[in-house]
Amino acid sequence: MRTTDEQAVGESWIRDHVQSLERGLAVICCLGTSKEMTLTQVAEATAITRAAARRFLLTLERLGYVGRTDRGYRLLPRTLELGYAYLSSQELPQIAQPYLQQLASELDESCGVSVLDQDAILYIARVTVSRLVGANLRAGSTLPAYCTAAGRILLAALGPSELANYLKRAKLEPRAPHTITDPKVLAGEIEVARTQGWYLIDQEIEHGIRSVAMPIRDTSGKTIAAVNVSSYSTRVSLTQLHRKFLPRIRQTVEKIEAELHSHR
Amino acid sequence: MRTTDEQAVGESWIRDHVQSLERGLAVICCLGTSKEMTLTQVAEATAITRAAARRFLLTLERLGYVGRTDRGYRLLPRTLELGYAYLSSQELPQIAQPYLQQLASELDESCGVSVLDQDAILYIARVTVSRLVGANLRAGSTLPAYCTAAGRILLAALGPSELANYLKRAKLEPRAPHTITDPKVLAGEIEVARTQGWYLIDQEIEHGIRSVAMPIRDTSGKTIAAVNVSSYSTRVSLTQLHRKFLPRIRQTVEKIEAELHSHR
Repeated sequence: MRTTDEQAVGESWIRDHVQSLERGLAVICCLGTSKEMTLTQVAEATAITRAAARRFLLTLERLGYVGRTDRGYRLLPRTLELGYAYLSSQELPQIAQPYLQQLASELDESCGVSVLDQDAILYIARVTVSRLVGANLRAGSTLPAYCTAAGRILLAALGPSELANYLKRAKLEPRAPHTITDPKVLAGEIEVARTQGWYLIDQEIEHGIRSVAMPIRDTSGKTIAAVNVSSYSTRVSLTQLHRKFLPRIRQTVEKIEAELHSHR
Repeated sequence: MRTTDEQAVGESWIRDHVQSLERGLAVICCLGTSKEMTLTQVAEATAITRAAARRFLLTLERLGYVGRTDRGYRLLPRTLELGYAYLSSQELPQIAQPYLQQLASELDESCGVSVLDQDAILYIARVTVSRLVGANLRAGSTLPAYCTAAGRILLAALGPSELANYLKRAKLEPRAPHTITDPKVLAGEIEVARTQGWYLIDQEIEHGIRSVAMPIRDTSGKTIAAVNVSSYSTRVSLTQLHRKFLPRIRQTVEKIEAELHSHR
């Protein structure tokens, strides 16, 4: 049984929540999962009626976000402007991009800057040099936090109760030879990431893929994002990751932090 | 006076249009213009009431797209996922990205792939090598079509009546020393872009900035996007743009088209 307080919150939630906006955004996200979708597919994927799905699609079509195909509907490039709205309002992606480009070109490996978005890391900047490792990752892409180097760095910045809640709810699925799936072992590794100030992950997200990450901190020392470089185990040894990659990532973080802090 | 047909269309438009979705998307776009905005600023910028703006902001906050600051509201990185929905559903950005990276690194200049979005070119992929020329441009950025090399290539692909409409409505503002502001002269240059199959623009969008663009075509020969490389007049001469840049852009287009057509 709900208390009066909970009821009040529930009622205010319903009064203030714009369900049409939530559903419209869900239609955009669902259209992103395929090159084109029929009305029926959109309605099923978003769990809304065909009639309502049709209204959202027509509205998005009129606004220039969605186009008609022979078989149904597809997203139009204008959708990118919604994502760009975030990038253009933020300093960090703008500041980080050229340093990342330099890092990627010096190490000849893909790298990125990510932040925590619920239980995932979300890239806010990304440079890909290889077509093989994570070539499909870019700003806006997400990966699970528990099995990525950047994820462990970002989880290490959570407060004790936030982290405990994460460890309780996270689904730790085995994705590669070394994926940690025991919450207690994971908690220990997150502690390693916190005390070390960097983290190396070896074949936990995909067979053969290694990644090193370090935190970007604000002037108060709070971790606000993570830089990571990823590579193949057949191309770069663990020794090289430590001796060559780590110092270069550290320099990149220092440059980004210096510019970021000078803006304050 | 409206005819019955126009009235029917008008009524169907109102019945099927989800205004809350349109307004919610407008709130996202408007928050992108600033690091943070107050409720009043959002309401003014989107021309909606404070009460309605508050409901949209609360909804977006609950969905994880907007965060609260001391002074008001700001976009959160999750907004990037909306843009990424488009990128992950499309072949061309995925295919073009590694070839663009190669082109940018060989010429040591920034380059991009863009499509026409109403009267603007919209980058669907972009690689920046310099912090000076267009370092703030990325996938999702837009520039006016009339004064960019990619814009003239893309306008050249319009049908005669679409192009005539564009020339009638476009505001041709002088932005740099050589900006063409006469619609007839512009029409002539768009014809040059069409017959040449490439276009070089010299200081029409910004003082000192030059850019070369070429079309990417589908199997039927229809232009679907444009590749462009931009540079400074002090760094690259017109001769170099012709002799060195143009052949490299052509090779890049050929590689992108070969891979794109092999997917069909």
